[in-house]
Amino acid sequence: MNAAEKKAFVAAFLDIVWTRGDVSEVERFLAPRYTIRSDPGDPWDGRTLTREEFAERLTISRAPFPDQVFIVDEMIADEAGVAVAWRWEGTHLADLPGFPASGRKVKTSGLTFYSFEDGKLSGHRQQTDRLGVFQQLARS
Amino acid sequence: MNAAEKKAFVAAFLDIVWTRGDVSEVERFLAPRYTIRSDPGDPWDGRTLTREEFAERLTISRAPFPDQVFIVDEMIADEAGVAVAWRWEGTHLADLPGFPASGRKVKTSGLTFYSFEDGKLSGHRQQTDRLGVFQQLARS
Repeated sequence: MNAAEKKAFVAAFLDIVWTRGDVSEVERFLAPRYTIRSDPGDPWDGRTLTREEFAERLTISRAPFPDQVFIVDEMIADEAGVAVAWRWEGTHLADLPGFPASGRKVKTSGLTFYSFEDGKLSGHRQQTDRLGVFQQLARS
Repeated sequence: MNAAEKKAFVAAFLDIVWTRGDVSEVERFLAPRYTIRSDPGDPWDGRTLTREEFAERLTISRAPFPDQVFIVDEMIADEAGVAVAWRWEGTHLADLPGFPASGRKVKTSGLTFYSFEDGKLSGHRQQTDRLGVFQQLARS
């Protein structure tokens, strides 16, 4: 898998798994063990997940914003992995801790480093503008 | 400048410019125009800076944590640029809006994409865990 193939793989993963939420496709993209090396604010930060546990994380994470869309802005790739800059938007349709469903359109952005193992994703490191999300949910 | 040289250049920039705060070295690393493409929470987000304006940003940004240190965790590089994952720590020795100098040791982390032009840095896109910083400054 060269750098261009890795970029296409990550773009497909974001579209099919995170934007469309297709749990049945997790196995196509994920290695048997997936480690969240660093992801401040993510409830699974620091854990190594099986595909089943990843599918559960996907379902729980998508629930508050079921129409969420990831848009890729930029990618950098080498033999070690792919770094991706993305924008995200979704409608707040289910409760979050401290923030009951509001119907608000929320936007944010983030950067993610994906690592590979045998042609599949073996983990990530991520930063998202979670303060910006809280500010959008909390404004009166 | 190949990918390995770009990585070394970014590591030196973080060490000399951001950790040591050496304003006299800005010209060695920066292109004549430097664009902050996206950096949520940064007061210069979205602006294109001259080297003089960048030096001013450096001085103002470092003032609250004058002993700050950046530690590189991971880098991904290609012809387009360098993505770097870093940790940061510093002591809160001067006032921030809403947070008078506290003497607290603060830690955070971030991801940055650097772009190049004629062998120098022409801009960045960044996400940092600023919510984590606020939580450390606000805790009683």
